[in-house]
Amino acid sequence: MKIKILKDILSANDQRAKENRELLNRNGILAINFTASPGAGKTSLILETINRLKADIKIGVVEGDVSSSLDAEMVVKKGVPVVQINTGGTCHLDATMVASAFNNLPLEEIELLLIENVGNLICPAAFALGEDLNVLISSVPEGDDKPHKYPVMFSKAHLVVLNKIDLLPHVLFDLPAFTEAVKGLNNGVEIFEVSCKTGQGIERWTSWLSNRLNKRPSTS
Amino acid sequence: MKIKILKDILSANDQRAKENRELLNRNGILAINFTASPGAGKTSLILETINRLKADIKIGVVEGDVSSSLDAEMVVKKGVPVVQINTGGTCHLDATMVASAFNNLPLEEIELLLIENVGNLICPAAFALGEDLNVLISSVPEGDDKPHKYPVMFSKAHLVVLNKIDLLPHVLFDLPAFTEAVKGLNNGVEIFEVSCKTGQGIERWTSWLSNRLNKRPSTS
Repeated sequence: MKIKILKDILSANDQRAKENRELLNRNGILAINFTASPGAGKTSLILETINRLKADIKIGVVEGDVSSSLDAEMVVKKGVPVVQINTGGTCHLDATMVASAFNNLPLEEIELLLIENVGNLICPAAFALGEDLNVLISSVPEGDDKPHKYPVMFSKAHLVVLNKIDLLPHVLFDLPAFTEAVKGLNNGVEIFEVSCKTGQGIERWTSWLSNRLNKRPSTS
Repeated sequence: MKIKILKDILSANDQRAKENRELLNRNGILAINFTASPGAGKTSLILETINRLKADIKIGVVEGDVSSSLDAEMVVKKGVPVVQINTGGTCHLDATMVASAFNNLPLEEIELLLIENVGNLICPAAFALGEDLNVLISSVPEGDDKPHKYPVMFSKAHLVVLNKIDLLPHVLFDLPAFTEAVKGLNNGVEIFEVSCKTGQGIERWTSWLSNRLNKRPSTS
């Protein structure tokens, strides 16, 4: 009986996610769902993406957190439309939360929607939001064993960004072992090594993103 | 109706946690529940604690992970009894899982039980295990804003360990801001600054633990 209820919830979420996706497509918006551990650098990557692309691309942001509006406040300063979702105790965003954020965003003026999920490597995997792409951010100080410990999230990612590579000289992190573990779960997925602090590798990420934007659904 | 079901689950968990606690008390065991983000250093602190205390104190370990037995394998090498719990998709340990681990541990030979919860700053807060103390490990590269983002976990901690202080020169981390945020949620809680990598601050932690062990329930 418990399983039945959970299936109903997930199925309702999938239906809502499909509607979100359709709305995004109608508006010609490419939507990215960023997932990561707390403190891996989701907000830093979003801010860096805005810095580099906002002159050419109309960006919108949805910030998901259990509590606080710290991240949204940083995005607002960049002059980009943003909605903060506080989930209360819930460990992930869901499609209904994101749908309600859409009511408070000028969708017709957005080409790229960056959705920052709650900092968590488990729960977000079960809840589609209507996104086009899942980008998982892992970070060097978390250690190279994270793919083994959180395999579902790594297997669902369309791209893995390994952040904080400036810390490689200061921590124990086996880069080949990390890469092998990721590929073992998700063969063919690319891993972009970046440092939001030094800027290293960010251009590869923004080029990849620009390329994806050119392939997004046409609104004509 | 949904709230009612959740309440039933939590109440059943609390009852089981109480039974766990009674069993631990009868055996004169002090139990610590370690919570943290993925990669903050729970396993490292447990291994360091074993290294320094195992000559004098009989230690047992329960390792909680969504997947893999990597952590338990490292503990086994230290010659300490350990049970690995894989939660599948569940983002926290619960009292029933821990009770089943007790069936596979020589409780009568353990004085200090170290329970490593799933790497997650949200879900574990709602599920008591029967532990005496909650120790929350935060780490410098995660950033100083974590108390604002995950307030419930910080407010429930009996001790906060700030790990990876060897990285302070290499990352942006405002230590007074972190301390103020923790105290704002949990006035009176101590924050131990440590580095499991360099060993800095670990002695303060093991002394605190030894002191707590001397105060644990008498089995006589």
